[in-house]
Amino acid sequence: MQPDLHSRALAAHTLHQFRILSPLTHCMTNEVVQSFTANTLLALGASPAMVIEPEEASRFAAIASALLVNVGTLTRERAAAMRAAVEHAQNAKTPWTLDPVAVGALEFRRRFCLELLSLQPAAIRGNASEILALAGMNSGGRGVDTTDTPAAALSSAQALARQIGTIVVVTGEVDYVTDGQRTVCVDGGDPLMTRVVGTGCALSAVVAASCALRGDRLDNVASACSWMKQAGQIATQQSNGPGSFVPAFLDALYNLNAQEQA
Amino acid sequence: MQPDLHSRALAAHTLHQFRILSPLTHCMTNEVVQSFTANTLLALGASPAMVIEPEEASRFAAIASALLVNVGTLTRERAAAMRAAVEHAQNAKTPWTLDPVAVGALEFRRRFCLELLSLQPAAIRGNASEILALAGMNSGGRGVDTTDTPAAALSSAQALARQIGTIVVVTGEVDYVTDGQRTVCVDGGDPLMTRVVGTGCALSAVVAASCALRGDRLDNVASACSWMKQAGQIATQQSNGPGSFVPAFLDALYNLNAQEQA
Amino acid sequence: MQPDLHSRALAAHTLHQFRILSPLTHCMTNEVVQSFTANTLLALGASPAMVIEPEEASRFAAIASALLVNVGTLTRERAAAMRAAVEHAQNAKTPWTLDPVAVGALEFRRRFCLELLSLQPAAIRGNASEILALAGMNSGGRGVDTTDTPAAALSSAQALARQIGTIVVVTGEVDYVTDGQRTVCVDGGDPLMTRVVGTGCALSAVVAASCALRGDRLDNVASACSWMKQAGQIATQQSNGPGSFVPAFLDALYNLNAQEQA
Repeated sequence: MQPDLHSRALAAHTLHQFRILSPLTHCMTNEVVQSFTANTLLALGASPAMVIEPEEASRFAAIASALLVNVGTLTRERAAAMRAAVEHAQNAKTPWTLDPVAVGALEFRRRFCLELLSLQPAAIRGNASEILALAGMNSGGRGVDTTDTPAAALSSAQALARQIGTIVVVTGEVDYVTDGQRTVCVDGGDPLMTRVVGTGCALSAVVAASCALRGDRLDNVASACSWMKQAGQIATQQSNGPGSFVPAFLDALYNLNAQEQA
Repeated sequence: MQPDLHSRALAAHTLHQFRILSPLTHCMTNEVVQSFTANTLLALGASPAMVIEPEEASRFAAIASALLVNVGTLTRERAAAMRAAVEHAQNAKTPWTLDPVAVGALEFRRRFCLELLSLQPAAIRGNASEILALAGMNSGGRGVDTTDTPAAALSSAQALARQIGTIVVVTGEVDYVTDGQRTVCVDGGDPLMTRVVGTGCALSAVVAASCALRGDRLDNVASACSWMKQAGQIATQQSNGPGSFVPAFLDALYNLNAQEQA
Repeated sequence: MQPDLHSRALAAHTLHQFRILSPLTHCMTNEVVQSFTANTLLALGASPAMVIEPEEASRFAAIASALLVNVGTLTRERAAAMRAAVEHAQNAKTPWTLDPVAVGALEFRRRFCLELLSLQPAAIRGNASEILALAGMNSGGRGVDTTDTPAAALSSAQALARQIGTIVVVTGEVDYVTDGQRTVCVDGGDPLMTRVVGTGCALSAVVAASCALRGDRLDNVASACSWMKQAGQIATQQSNGPGSFVPAFLDALYNLNAQEQA
């Protein structure tokens, strides 16, 4: 069965709600993308906070609107802080999202991610190789690059979503968003986005923040994907390469549906 | 009593001195803003250095022109290195500046900042909620966002400055700079600056560097605020959103009073 | 004897090979420049990966095409992970490159870098003060700034290259690349590059990645220097300061010899 294409009108409606809520988004993410992640959330109207000390992170996860855990530059110390934060998030009913960066290539983080799956993530966002590895279909992947297409990972993503009771997002040329029953797809974007570090990681932060919204979570998460795809498309048209893409992308997020803001 | 508006002619004069001195500025700051902080200092003609290992940081704090301590992503290890660096800075008479990021919301960093206050900071820079929390008027704040206006924090800032014997900067729509006796205010900037991560943290680094200048420290610190407000105003006019703001802001800092450079 | 000027035609040829290989480049670098380093590698067509946990870094160094070790924000924990990664790289014949940031000013990192020299780096990239300090001619340097000219460090660089059996790159207004027998020089660039954080660190990452190429390593490393000098020159012409330099620089790397890509 062909997944339905997510509606841009719905994405615009959800963005309006997102800007009103301005979710306080606790990001425990990797060293490389912290600034771009924060700027992405700020451009969309959310309020990012990067808090990492175990005691502080536990406390903050409970008062934040949403929590992101990204294992890109995992260490033992950071893993302990993330585990504590996720446990406090779960107790406080703060929705938390997992980005299992490069989980197919590295055993330490794979074990950590599998352990976290028992703590009920609201969403998981990865590329095809990462989702396949998390679902036990180890395809490897080449560092953070995917060697599989999103379509090839779709049935594994659906099975994983049903098994854990979560939303799984497989991103690539087309993004698939599934809860195991319903699946929607989101198009747009541009291959240039793969030449800019952190576009996937920043999407995971926006997915995390979107889980703080009321209403249908599958639609909210698909809307998050849609905002990023739309901004990526606009920014590519306005840029001469991956350098000028970054400011154009953040501007596009900020100005998305500006008429609706007015 | 209405604070005096800081003079832009004085700010231009101070910038000229700053570029000649090119203060070697030791930044112990958070993970999110390191690159933007370094680029801000470089654009203004200072020389940033991020040194964090306890032994190295202690040694470096003694040879640097100025030291910044920013607790945005504090950990126990980083706190120990900061404490050692501040102690060596104090012995070597290197002026050091505190940025108490989100100190109202998180107890671990609040205790650490209060402990550091006994080590004679040259300056403290925070938003209204942070300064109120540091002065014992716990208002909370929402993560790194302020829920108070600078004017509401002014009397607490003045009391704190007198008590510690330091310069306190409360930033917001208008910045207030006070030593507890004199208070000046600095206008300019644009709300767009709050949609870019690290503008406040970078200002703290510039405040820290400005404390290496000779002359009246209150005027030097107010000048640092003025450079950032002026560049923010220019950059807002030249940009389409928070993405294009960043390069325009660094260019504006670099080109500020360029006629005087010639 | 005057070093030969490296040929831009050869640099263009090497870039063509580089884009085909797309070297998977394991970067263990400092906190400040991670994003810019990754974006530089991506713009040139390489695939960066920042992996830092000791067990993961050891495993990853063995499967990567190349490894970079940059000591800019060294800590004891990070040093242990780097040492383990370098040992695994050496066993797996993964070429690894050392960037001895500020090694003249700080003893802890100087000892660490000297220790690593016994593990056969493929290349070493530093400014004149750093190379002089590594060669035992301690000139100090002012933090990360050099207080010496590349030409003054040339004979020390050549002696170091012969002693270790490596390629040494001394960068500045002109870059010198030497294996101790042959020396080539690379011109271009612009002083504006010294007002942007991470241009030297990013060059070290590109040097590291270029060591994964087949053929003459001296020519490959000099080509890496040439790409960065050329892009720096183009970007300076297109920018108004250090802020707009960054996107223009990444675009220039991406579009370098675009006719050859077609």
